[in-house]
Amino acid sequence: MEKITARTNDKIKYAVRLGESASLRKEAGEFFLEGARLCFDAAQTGVEIKQAFFTAKALWKYEDYVGDIIAKSGICYEISAEVSQKLSGTENSQGVFCICSMKTPPEGDGIDPCGKYIALENLQDPSNLGAICRSAEAIGLDGLIVSGGCDIYNPKALRAAMGSSLRMNMISVENLADFISQANNKGMLTLASVPRNTATDIRTVEMSGGVICCVGNEGSGLTQQVIEKCKKQVVIPMNGRAESFNASAAAAILAWELKR
Amino acid sequence: MEKITARTNDKIKYAVRLGESASLRKEAGEFFLEGARLCFDAAQTGVEIKQAFFTAKALWKYEDYVGDIIAKSGICYEISAEVSQKLSGTENSQGVFCICSMKTPPEGDGIDPCGKYIALENLQDPSNLGAICRSAEAIGLDGLIVSGGCDIYNPKALRAAMGSSLRMNMISVENLADFISQANNKGMLTLASVPRNTATDIRTVEMSGGVICCVGNEGSGLTQQVIEKCKKQVVIPMNGRAESFNASAAAAILAWELKR
Repeated sequence: MEKITARTNDKIKYAVRLGESASLRKEAGEFFLEGARLCFDAAQTGVEIKQAFFTAKALWKYEDYVGDIIAKSGICYEISAEVSQKLSGTENSQGVFCICSMKTPPEGDGIDPCGKYIALENLQDPSNLGAICRSAEAIGLDGLIVSGGCDIYNPKALRAAMGSSLRMNMISVENLADFISQANNKGMLTLASVPRNTATDIRTVEMSGGVICCVGNEGSGLTQQVIEKCKKQVVIPMNGRAESFNASAAAAILAWELKR
Repeated sequence: MEKITARTNDKIKYAVRLGESASLRKEAGEFFLEGARLCFDAAQTGVEIKQAFFTAKALWKYEDYVGDIIAKSGICYEISAEVSQKLSGTENSQGVFCICSMKTPPEGDGIDPCGKYIALENLQDPSNLGAICRSAEAIGLDGLIVSGGCDIYNPKALRAAMGSSLRMNMISVENLADFISQANNKGMLTLASVPRNTATDIRTVEMSGGVICCVGNEGSGLTQQVIEKCKKQVVIPMNGRAESFNASAAAAILAWELKR
């Protein structure tokens, strides 16, 4: 295994930039992953691992995970503790990192007209995005639709998702309003989640067929275009002076109701 | 209004320490609050505001909020932009800060034997704690029980709670296992949330009477002592390879089921 000890090594600089820059990720079709378990999950899930980096300590400390990662990786490097520190976004790094190819989009639109989906528009907080992936997988949704600024390959989003975003059916769309129109044409029920108690109580919505429920930005909610395309506006009824739920709490409850 | 322009002013140093130190908060019985809306919520909710700090800009920019804060404050100070920056935990500070007294604990144990409660044990992430307060208020729980390392007066927790922790019935307990025993003696149903699909499906639990549902630490879950005291172990059934929900997503779904 080739060794890298210089923090200024080009491969290391590229990996750091890949973690930092959404536009570089998009351009290269690659993303950066940190953590023994997450990299192992990527290997298990069939994500293409182009390069893997391990500290000497990680090679024995996480040997249960490392073997699979090495087996699936194009090239592996041993890195010094200093290089690991440069790559890491956390205080106590495990010293395991990968550069992976983004998953190829599903054939067609990736939507089963009888399935249950949450669609996220312009979520701001990557930790919310990751937590919603985790809930969506655990609840057993058929996929997660992401649009606008929702970058599932952001390192914080990947960490919060705990591998679920690598395993789930993730559908990335350019224009959510257009996508909702197409779903309407397929006979799916499309719901816009809004924080207004005058909208339809989510508990009273008939969920037997295919459903897409849209959740918007933490501060500004869904765009008017998306709300107008959806067949129904729904609300999680609220008490007290609370103005809304945290986006990941709202998405968890909505996903839970979709699958009730 | 007295002006403070020195970052080394003793009042400012004390306010910063109050934001940073849980032990100082506990010792002083005071906490530090940042943000025009949050400080306004505190004033509206009847929280005792001992000192308030405003930048000159904030005094006109947030005049809708500031009036109430000033009316309810013991002493008010105008602070310079530099002092505001020193006090602030955010990038774009609004320049509004308060030092408040912690709420006095409710008479007795604060529990209605017919009410619905979530109890949190040793939550690690203050943002999770705050998000759960927000969900608990929105869903209309009768209160939130916090034990162990759950510090609702942590600035990140206060921010994520968006005022809900100041309005809600918050019950702080030293020993959650003992508290659960007392609740059992009152005839309440006590539930331990565990990430095991062999536990009772939360959807099948009869919720007509008083219920306390316990949620544990993000990494290690509930302590064995609490699990043993609870009458029933419950689970949000999980699909796929997800190992658990994010704590705030789990608490949102559990609170939602308590009030179904």
